[in-house]
Amino acid sequence: MSMIKSFAILGGDKRQIFCGKSIAEDGFGVVFSGFERYSGEAPVRSCSMREAAGECDAIILPLPCSRNGKTLNAPFADREVLLEEISSLAGSTPVFCGMKNRMEVCFERVFDYSDREEFAVENAVPTAEGAIELAMREYEGTINSSRCLVAGYGRIGRVLSSMLQGLGGIVTVSARRLGDMAFARASGMNAIPSSEISGKYDIIFNTIPHLVFDPQTLARTSPSLVIDLASSPGGVDFEGAKRLNLKALHALSLPGKAAPAASGIIIKNAVYNIIREEQL
Amino acid sequence: MSMIKSFAILGGDKRQIFCGKSIAEDGFGVVFSGFERYSGEAPVRSCSMREAAGECDAIILPLPCSRNGKTLNAPFADREVLLEEISSLAGSTPVFCGMKNRMEVCFERVFDYSDREEFAVENAVPTAEGAIELAMREYEGTINSSRCLVAGYGRIGRVLSSMLQGLGGIVTVSARRLGDMAFARASGMNAIPSSEISGKYDIIFNTIPHLVFDPQTLARTSPSLVIDLASSPGGVDFEGAKRLNLKALHALSLPGKAAPAASGIIIKNAVYNIIREEQL
Amino acid sequence: MSMIKSFAILGGDKRQIFCGKSIAEDGFGVVFSGFERYSGEAPVRSCSMREAAGECDAIILPLPCSRNGKTLNAPFADREVLLEEISSLAGSTPVFCGMKNRMEVCFERVFDYSDREEFAVENAVPTAEGAIELAMREYEGTINSSRCLVAGYGRIGRVLSSMLQGLGGIVTVSARRLGDMAFARASGMNAIPSSEISGKYDIIFNTIPHLVFDPQTLARTSPSLVIDLASSPGGVDFEGAKRLNLKALHALSLPGKAAPAASGIIIKNAVYNIIREEQL
Amino acid sequence: MSMIKSFAILGGDKRQIFCGKSIAEDGFGVVFSGFERYSGEAPVRSCSMREAAGECDAIILPLPCSRNGKTLNAPFADREVLLEEISSLAGSTPVFCGMKNRMEVCFERVFDYSDREEFAVENAVPTAEGAIELAMREYEGTINSSRCLVAGYGRIGRVLSSMLQGLGGIVTVSARRLGDMAFARASGMNAIPSSEISGKYDIIFNTIPHLVFDPQTLARTSPSLVIDLASSPGGVDFEGAKRLNLKALHALSLPGKAAPAASGIIIKNAVYNIIREEQL
Repeated sequence: MSMIKSFAILGGDKRQIFCGKSIAEDGFGVVFSGFERYSGEAPVRSCSMREAAGECDAIILPLPCSRNGKTLNAPFADREVLLEEISSLAGSTPVFCGMKNRMEVCFERVFDYSDREEFAVENAVPTAEGAIELAMREYEGTINSSRCLVAGYGRIGRVLSSMLQGLGGIVTVSARRLGDMAFARASGMNAIPSSEISGKYDIIFNTIPHLVFDPQTLARTSPSLVIDLASSPGGVDFEGAKRLNLKALHALSLPGKAAPAASGIIIKNAVYNIIREEQL
Repeated sequence: MSMIKSFAILGGDKRQIFCGKSIAEDGFGVVFSGFERYSGEAPVRSCSMREAAGECDAIILPLPCSRNGKTLNAPFADREVLLEEISSLAGSTPVFCGMKNRMEVCFERVFDYSDREEFAVENAVPTAEGAIELAMREYEGTINSSRCLVAGYGRIGRVLSSMLQGLGGIVTVSARRLGDMAFARASGMNAIPSSEISGKYDIIFNTIPHLVFDPQTLARTSPSLVIDLASSPGGVDFEGAKRLNLKALHALSLPGKAAPAASGIIIKNAVYNIIREEQL
Repeated sequence: MSMIKSFAILGGDKRQIFCGKSIAEDGFGVVFSGFERYSGEAPVRSCSMREAAGECDAIILPLPCSRNGKTLNAPFADREVLLEEISSLAGSTPVFCGMKNRMEVCFERVFDYSDREEFAVENAVPTAEGAIELAMREYEGTINSSRCLVAGYGRIGRVLSSMLQGLGGIVTVSARRLGDMAFARASGMNAIPSSEISGKYDIIFNTIPHLVFDPQTLARTSPSLVIDLASSPGGVDFEGAKRLNLKALHALSLPGKAAPAASGIIIKNAVYNIIREEQL
Repeated sequence: MSMIKSFAILGGDKRQIFCGKSIAEDGFGVVFSGFERYSGEAPVRSCSMREAAGECDAIILPLPCSRNGKTLNAPFADREVLLEEISSLAGSTPVFCGMKNRMEVCFERVFDYSDREEFAVENAVPTAEGAIELAMREYEGTINSSRCLVAGYGRIGRVLSSMLQGLGGIVTVSARRLGDMAFARASGMNAIPSSEISGKYDIIFNTIPHLVFDPQTLARTSPSLVIDLASSPGGVDFEGAKRLNLKALHALSLPGKAAPAASGIIIKNAVYNIIREEQL
């Protein structure tokens, strides 16, 4: 990590603030810009984009870096910042961003921290905890001793099912592949094929990004609560759930909401990993 | 369980409603009284005290049965109900109540479900989950990978520490007895004596019912969040925490708040156990 | 599973006997051949190859089906059986075998149960338990509270590390991919890169199939016991270990040795899965 | 721990050797006597009783200290040593021993490390691991996915059931008290009353020290393997098991056999705890 001694954090939400603070605690220089209107517990000195970009060896943009392709995603900034402006200020300085493909602007040297495997796995942790917090708030029983179905055994399904089991839930996992079903069983869970969801459950957590919980499946499994973690449009027929009088919630962007500090550190870790691999 | 075929649920909060509904699902007759103003999702037909007491083989009073010694604890009732009235309606009908010693009125046959060992253990589950939900809401990191201290290794400490470990927390337990410390270590946790709380923690959960977390201890352990589960006055110097700028919360009566359905079933189980043991 | 009503179990060891018995318990007809000299607790009636092949709808050969390419792997048979003979007896009957590529003889319809993903995952369970049994026998401490390194986080590493943790071991996992390291950390374990094994350990379990534990690494990690689970030549320098006075063991074919009953059922499950998928 | 700087280890088996070596690693002086015929991997210089007792500030006797009340339990000694001799050599030197009540000889200052709560809890760990090792060796399936009954939920039952669950076993616990049953259920296990053992099991572990598994109970629960951990006469009718053709094993003194190093450290810990409490 020889060359990069200081970072500019440009835009983003609370996660970026925690990211920057954690980098500073590691002994690096850190400047912030685009947080003029932020008034959280731990205040941040926000300087101008020019000043920030000029003083640093590397720039970190938020996740996603842009919502419209043209301007920086900077909810706490006091003005709109064009990505063009950042690109020209950055020059050959390395830029780290989330969801690079959302930007319609070119940067000389840009790296996407959000498409890395370890980033996705680490984010499964705050996602799973956010889902559990939501379930605890909305469900009138305890997770302990409840029948929980985790539909899908990808990164989130794997972390979430293990946490539910750790709380004493009676966990069933659905998976597409027989090998994943075997893994779940070896961990002491029940496993069923995702194509044939069956059984009765108290709480259903869905992570499969296409329609699995149609009205028939919802009626058959009769949950007290359904939490859909799959990105829009999700895997639950919410209209159908309403007609069946089932409480169904679509929980999106949990990491940033449930655990901004943890999410900021996950961004930091991914940036560090890129720096190491790319020998920046 | 030969003689008792029907129950009257007199007063109480949501827990008693769930208790009664669960008893009804077991095939017993159940009548409610003292829920006239309740307007939850699952409505309850509330009859008069006289009618309810007259129709049943056993009466269940809430937890606590009274807050002032003289009237029934019935937040959803449309009038004040004197315990004297219930006592005279009950006659020799068995009465099950929580915290019997709060009542200044005599009943012919009265049993306290709240002083039973299994009742206390089962309530440790919703208490622990309620504490975890609160920690997830208030803490900006994840419990996973966080350093958690559970002070006290009684019923709640035992259940809570195991759940935190199941979520991937790095758990330290404090206990008074060396044997309890050995149990915690055998479970893969760190253990320290309660008389010498040391180390740094992200989240502290206190279950010890006397002052353990004085300002010095709070400063030394430097938690981001302190949750006190011990009944009033608790084991945390909240004033001191404020001066140290530490977020400290006193969480009381968690079972009823966090998981009324589970709490209702726990009351039901204890009542059934008394009926079996006393051969009522 | 409409067409196949009976199975012939030809050759193999104790696993095949358990496989056949478990199939019989499911209600299918089962005949055995090639077990003339078997004298275990649960005797098996062994008929002739001709009789067995003639009476069945499907044939199950062992794992591996052959050790030399030409004859059946049948340690309990009273004579050598040529694969040619079985092939001609089988005709168009479906044949299920393990390690098909070891055979130099053609079959009309042959399916390999041993190259299936779920078969490999399920076998990780008896492999992990066999490794733990060995560690318990050879190590003079307890796994509980011991520092255990599991090198490699494939199927076996994943199951084994979780079991060691369940026993109260202090588990470090080594992995090649950052994503796998993140999964291990989310499960409450330490994780290090396989390319830079570091730290001190009481017990090392290796699952990586190339030389990782050279004398330098062994000296640096100073284990009391090394168990190599990787197939020959394995990942441990056994000569070097000897010179360093370290106890190092190469544990091969654990499933069949440690848990023949479980292994037989795993074979059965894989055969059933093939039948379902191929609609035999 | 101011006054005691050196220890004499007099008699005992491998555990005492590990105990002494571990004490020496903590920086104390350690001399051994009564190990003249010991020829293990790590040799021990055995001096005379007189020399050993004369050179030390404290004496550690084995567990049990005597088998007949009169002579030291010293299987590796080259002669019989009378406890009278040790008593007179010891004088006012503190003596730590296991099972003090087995001795018919008086010592001036004697402390029993074996009747301490934390000693018993810590010994539950090697006992549980020894039982699991035995089960793995004798059972032809895997513990993972097997139905395991742990009869009795005392120290050993508590540690053992949790380890079996960590291996993926399907664990049922039997207990006498409803509170203990509630704890087991909160941990995700099944719980049944010890007075009404029911259900079918693959492996039964008994820890209850009176006859629970009579022929009727054995027949009804139909286990493949029964391991009795209760001290003689144990809780299993072994004759009846034989008639039923059930494999039943009485496993005694597991800690010393399965994990002498761990057992030696447990003795050391208890001695240190006595020194601290008694301010020796």
